[in-house]
Amino acid sequence: MKKITVLGSTGSIGKNTLEIVRNLNEYKIVALSAHNNYKLLIEQIKEFQPRYVSIGSLEGYNKLKEIFPELEIYFSDEGLKRLGDLDESDILISAVSGSVGIEATLNAIKKEKRVGLANKETMVAAGDLINHLLKTYKAEIIPVDSEHSAIFQALEGNNISEVKKLIITASGGPFRGKDLNFLKSVSAKQALMHPNWNMGSKISIDSSTLVNKGLEVIEAHQLFGIDYDDIEVLIHPQSIIHSMVEYCDGSIIAQLGLPDMKIPIQYALTYPKRLNNPCISSLDFFTQASSLNFEKPNNNTFKGLSLAFKAGKTGGTMPAVFNASNEVAVSLFLEEKISFLDIYLAIEKAMENHTPLSALSLDNILNADKEARKFVRNLFEI
Amino acid sequence: MKKITVLGSTGSIGKNTLEIVRNLNEYKIVALSAHNNYKLLIEQIKEFQPRYVSIGSLEGYNKLKEIFPELEIYFSDEGLKRLGDLDESDILISAVSGSVGIEATLNAIKKEKRVGLANKETMVAAGDLINHLLKTYKAEIIPVDSEHSAIFQALEGNNISEVKKLIITASGGPFRGKDLNFLKSVSAKQALMHPNWNMGSKISIDSSTLVNKGLEVIEAHQLFGIDYDDIEVLIHPQSIIHSMVEYCDGSIIAQLGLPDMKIPIQYALTYPKRLNNPCISSLDFFTQASSLNFEKPNNNTFKGLSLAFKAGKTGGTMPAVFNASNEVAVSLFLEEKISFLDIYLAIEKAMENHTPLSALSLDNILNADKEARKFVRNLFEI
Repeated sequence: MKKITVLGSTGSIGKNTLEIVRNLNEYKIVALSAHNNYKLLIEQIKEFQPRYVSIGSLEGYNKLKEIFPELEIYFSDEGLKRLGDLDESDILISAVSGSVGIEATLNAIKKEKRVGLANKETMVAAGDLINHLLKTYKAEIIPVDSEHSAIFQALEGNNISEVKKLIITASGGPFRGKDLNFLKSVSAKQALMHPNWNMGSKISIDSSTLVNKGLEVIEAHQLFGIDYDDIEVLIHPQSIIHSMVEYCDGSIIAQLGLPDMKIPIQYALTYPKRLNNPCISSLDFFTQASSLNFEKPNNNTFKGLSLAFKAGKTGGTMPAVFNASNEVAVSLFLEEKISFLDIYLAIEKAMENHTPLSALSLDNILNADKEARKFVRNLFEI
Repeated sequence: MKKITVLGSTGSIGKNTLEIVRNLNEYKIVALSAHNNYKLLIEQIKEFQPRYVSIGSLEGYNKLKEIFPELEIYFSDEGLKRLGDLDESDILISAVSGSVGIEATLNAIKKEKRVGLANKETMVAAGDLINHLLKTYKAEIIPVDSEHSAIFQALEGNNISEVKKLIITASGGPFRGKDLNFLKSVSAKQALMHPNWNMGSKISIDSSTLVNKGLEVIEAHQLFGIDYDDIEVLIHPQSIIHSMVEYCDGSIIAQLGLPDMKIPIQYALTYPKRLNNPCISSLDFFTQASSLNFEKPNNNTFKGLSLAFKAGKTGGTMPAVFNASNEVAVSLFLEEKISFLDIYLAIEKAMENHTPLSALSLDNILNADKEARKFVRNLFEI
């Protein structure tokens, strides 16, 4: 019986993880965390009966205390860190949104657990530190992002030194093909309309700016140790090929499937095994994938990618700044306080303002993160 | 230094094999065979300096004897068998056309060599016997057909018991989308115009009838031990995705690349390594694969597939009859003695006429082959 902790259990990845576990034997939930959706968390606690729970809102914390007096309940960021540290858990699924997931993941690595990593900000901001820790601790990181899971699967049975390049696919988001003039005035509602994936609001906005793809490029560099010059992004509007690896002999291995996060989530749980699960559907090429298209990303209009490559190549704490400035800017955009193109401006200015330090220090990473958040709020005088 | 024997060195696969070896260190040719193109064989002997050579024509044999008095030269089918048996060779690339390659491959297996198998007729007719021998002899068969190499690569690092189905792609050949009425009167010249691959005449005709895809289905069943009901054929006109494996968890692994046989040939030589080779080009998605399409094969018009599934499911010596009757019919079609649709008629009638026996006996296989050839010639009174 494998024991699982899910950080962010009321989000899209979290709910899908519970759906997978509901349909598998031999996997049991021991801990859950939610940001503020305590109503759903209460239902999840009743169904999965975890021993530990953490919640980000005080209102939720008090409700849980009242309804489940026997349960061990933690609060906020400290609660997340505590859940990363649990001795009883074998696998941590880190599916919180943003850099709040970093410390819980570090704790899980130090406890030599398997981490199913859906929280890409962790690898972006703290990749150097995590890779350093992985030299000492026998933890394993299995990516849950569909693109990185695809690359992970395409690397199976192969030698990383024989990789020529990683080809990360991108749907292009809801504004694919649009120009700068159009983007000037787009609303949060428009930006949230992702063509293929049903996801949370932060990642949906990130998809529309291509910042999400930028974060994925940095994450791929950190997970697989491939040079930025050997990572290519390919717009593939149908999101059927989830990513590919080209080898030195010209052979390309790709992973395909329906745009359904349950496939990579389950793989992170069951790897190296694959299991049949009634809640996962097969792809039918004739009706669901009769035509697959590819085009170049427009990096002049959608600066998310070029800013990410710049941050990644600069290294140190710069990716943390790229990520944190974007997080704040996306929140402000969702609150209709800044425009769509201001997101790029925020990242660009925050990066210009930052002098990168080593990202082997957690303090440096967290300071860079904090500083960038403050910088962006000041930039827009909020 | 790996020592290589190439059976069929003057054909398309043979020439590509020599092109690969020309550009790799650590690989040396020790033996070559050709059917009757002795002029090209003479050039190849001069360049690669094999120790052993075999040729199918008496004219060629005499020429070679005259020009290379020091060389060990064999003749015809016996010569091929002898080359399969060479102690000095590590790898046999079996790239002859038709069932003549069977015995050389059996000899190589008994000598526990690696066999790079481009001669699909061997696995189709003698798959049962070969799989039986592979239980005793530590030989390995690495497929060279682009589809089977793709499946082989998509299986790397995975467990065969977790396969849900094999998805073999097919270009659909030059007559894709045409109806029976059109096919009635097509010429050999039209049938030889393959849209993507530059291949020999026998395999080009087989592509136009979908018999080639049928042979591949049987070969895949024999190579990978997957039930016929779990093998699907997908028409993919661009020949960029060379085949795929769907696993029980809904994940699909595919192998892609330019339609260039040098990739699977080299993989058969270097497996499990991959090597950079200047003679192999990368696929550029933007210019060479911007759109990939998939459709169902039309099994009513192109009976090659349904006849193959029938032969495969019947088993025993029936696949040998499917293959041999097709070989004769294709020759007769190329000689303009029968029509395109007569190829299906020949296979259908030969299969109806045959009572299958065990294919664990080489005699049974060779008799079934001989009987089917005779039957087809009689059918058309030739």
